[in-house]
Amino acid sequence: MNSILLEENEQLDDLQLNGLRIIQKKDGFKFGTDAVLLSDFAKSIHSDNTLDLCTGSGIIPILMSAKTKTKKFCAIEIQEEIAKTAKRSVELNNLSDRISVICDDLKNSTKFFPKRSFDLITCNPPYMKSGAALLNESDSKIIARHEVKCSLEDIISVSSQLLRQGGHFALVHKPSRLCDIIYLLRKYEIEPKRIRFVQKTYNSCPELVLVDAMYKAKSEVNIMEPLILKNEYGQESEELKRIYHGGKS
Amino acid sequence: MNSILLEENEQLDDLQLNGLRIIQKKDGFKFGTDAVLLSDFAKSIHSDNTLDLCTGSGIIPILMSAKTKTKKFCAIEIQEEIAKTAKRSVELNNLSDRISVICDDLKNSTKFFPKRSFDLITCNPPYMKSGAALLNESDSKIIARHEVKCSLEDIISVSSQLLRQGGHFALVHKPSRLCDIIYLLRKYEIEPKRIRFVQKTYNSCPELVLVDAMYKAKSEVNIMEPLILKNEYGQESEELKRIYHGGKS
Repeated sequence: MNSILLEENEQLDDLQLNGLRIIQKKDGFKFGTDAVLLSDFAKSIHSDNTLDLCTGSGIIPILMSAKTKTKKFCAIEIQEEIAKTAKRSVELNNLSDRISVICDDLKNSTKFFPKRSFDLITCNPPYMKSGAALLNESDSKIIARHEVKCSLEDIISVSSQLLRQGGHFALVHKPSRLCDIIYLLRKYEIEPKRIRFVQKTYNSCPELVLVDAMYKAKSEVNIMEPLILKNEYGQESEELKRIYHGGKS
Repeated sequence: MNSILLEENEQLDDLQLNGLRIIQKKDGFKFGTDAVLLSDFAKSIHSDNTLDLCTGSGIIPILMSAKTKTKKFCAIEIQEEIAKTAKRSVELNNLSDRISVICDDLKNSTKFFPKRSFDLITCNPPYMKSGAALLNESDSKIIARHEVKCSLEDIISVSSQLLRQGGHFALVHKPSRLCDIIYLLRKYEIEPKRIRFVQKTYNSCPELVLVDAMYKAKSEVNIMEPLILKNEYGQESEELKRIYHGGKS
């Protein structure tokens, strides 16, 4: 573990996995359960070369570095301050040989990556359409939560160009956007193969959806059993415990 | 209740709802839980004029006649023998003033119904693509189960022409076809508003999906809590009991 100087408005969080830690702004957008669930959901997809779009703190490649044998991760973040913090987290965890952080607009990524060069693209994007209310938030949080700098269609269009044939696209999003997700994926020839809804309890509406789609695959999807976060006593479910504290797939 | 002469290969089933009964061929395709679930799922949609595509035995309009105040149901069935049986079930239940059964190809229905004339279109269609194995089944069962006479796209295209603005399309189908369903609905400007998965138990994969979509609606879907068929003791869940034995919404 490398040593690190934290800035005043930063905090260091223990990821409880192989000693991994992550730097986050105290008053900024922080990663949530969604990023942890996506990294677990995507870990079974074999990939030598993974791209993470809208990487934020770098949480997804950092977690997946411990959960998979993937050789190279590229992570793109448009906000300079946040990309810098992600780079420092990568160094802190001694992962600079496996994870590269690039600060750029993901819409430019088709210029600097060769087409069809990734086995897997992951994304925990802004959930809200840009038309939604944008009050009472810092610019940085707005960009993390709302489709200001990129739309879902931008993300899927870029992924369609960068995935190799048979490559996977793994996404976490809000269930209310499911039809947008499925429609756009098929429009760009990426076909959902596994969909898993995440529910607080066994009889509640899902609050998240995990999608694993494949470039140029046939149309037939496996809707998996729901991922349930709490047991009947309101405590972490066994599956959530395994996700937070388990190892490689 | 009118009297009825059953043919030798027919059976009379009690629907356990307001004394309703239905005639089915002993060796033919029989309605299943899917039709019962769809009629319950769709009962909260206000409609004066409902069309049921691929009606088979007429089970959906017959059940919905008891579960709703809908004034008129039209039911289309392509197979002559089955359409005749459906008509006899309508007469048996004294419902001829509310339910009309038409024997025709649903693709012709845009010729004899005015455009934008229905508030609600229901459909429990053949689930399997026509390319799937067609061995060891009678022609009549093949037509009920496989997309031989009509495809999902035919059903959705016709519905898009016949629904009034704001009218609803309610479908039951296999979850593996979810992406086809969502993609085609949006292609024909019918936007899913409620989706509910049906699971045998709280932690099993869904075996059916119920979709309520609206013509020319905005894109945002409510993924509901799953409908669970069995309780932890393997018996009918409370909700399934209510669906089978409950009344109007």
